Amino acid sequence: MSSRIITISREFGSGGRTIGKAVAQRLKIPCYDQELIEKIASETGFNVDYIKEQGEYAQHKSRFANAFAARDRKGTSMQDHLWRMQYQIILNLAQKGACVIVGRCADYILRDQAPVLSVFIHAGQGYRAKRIVEVYGERAETPEKRVKDKDERRRAYYQHYTDMEWGNASNYHIALDSGVLGLDTCTETIVQLYKAMETNQR
Amino acid sequence: MSSRIITISREFGSGGRTIGKAVAQRLKIPCYDQELIEKIASETGFNVDYIKEQGEYAQHKSRFANAFAARDRKGTSMQDHLWRMQYQIILNLAQKGACVIVGRCADYILRDQAPVLSVFIHAGQGYRAKRIVEVYGERAETPEKRVKDKDERRRAYYQHYTDMEWGNASNYHIALDSGVLGLDTCTETIVQLYKAMETNQR
Repeated sequence: MSSRIITISREFGSGGRTIGKAVAQRLKIPCYDQELIEKIASETGFNVDYIKEQGEYAQHKSRFANAFAARDRKGTSMQDHLWRMQYQIILNLAQKGACVIVGRCADYILRDQAPVLSVFIHAGQGYRAKRIVEVYGERAETPEKRVKDKDERRRAYYQHYTDMEWGNASNYHIALDSGVLGLDTCTETIVQLYKAMETNQR
Repeated sequence: MSSRIITISREFGSGGRTIGKAVAQRLKIPCYDQELIEKIASETGFNVDYIKEQGEYAQHKSRFANAFAARDRKGTSMQDHLWRMQYQIILNLAQKGACVIVGRCADYILRDQAPVLSVFIHAGQGYRAKRIVEVYGERAETPEKRVKDKDERRRAYYQHYTDMEWGNASNYHIALDSGVLGLDTCTETIVQLYKAMETNQR
């Protein structure tokens, strides 16, 4: 049996990525987030920005979206190609040993493939709007609109490729409100849960 | 500031009630479940079986349901009366000090009224179907049908009185899959989280 993987799905701005890194550091296992994007880039030839945007978010809704979406002769869109490649890369990563994988529907991809601790991190919109300005800086759009837009597109992407409801508690082994609990407490909770599962497994 | 309350919402058969009792025992605080039902009975005059059934579950769907639902001259159903009384009793309980409250939409009722750790316990249908036979014994209906029916009616009740989506991770501070994690690990996780929140508050 291969080692357990922690998958972290997260609402935009909830700190899920930060928690993932901290958990990995505590457990001394790798965390795949930016590294995963770079790996996908090098193996697929897509550039990093394209993967960041198209590998986790549905395209902006537009009545021209379908007409303009690049498709090959079999009707497969570029996003579908990227999905399949990401899928295979995540499967390969899971074979290598224990790690944390942030985003990219890894919870869904690995659920019958490897022992997983599947985590969802969420927080209130106000907390997230404040936090994204601190982390990513000001943008033309209001932080509230950025949070709402990213949520909607991530939800649509997840639903499209997994046919599951994003953010439904039943899809995850543990879901945590980082806004109320704080990032450190979330990290500690996941670390302890992971250790308990590893002990019970023996 | 009053002491923190732990509210436990749970899918039928997930062991949420057992976890609630174990958490309360570990923290040496009261757990209101059967006791709450008896309290509601003594304060309202409704009998215990009526409260168990009507205080948490929507009525079975029937095209005659509305016609038959007992209503007073203001159009308030008996279930609405019970809701209001339960609401007040739960608010009063929360004033008395730290405790665990299982079910009865306490998460919603207390969310702006008291410091709360809001928990949701869920598990796969197969796990729950097996468990309810062990805990509640065989019935005429199959366990799968009992689980499905109870889920639907609890969901409908919650949605009707809170206008929130039952089982959506965003409604809870922590959601746990008791089927995968086990009841003991869920208990331990909640106890540790509660202690961490109490420490951070000081």
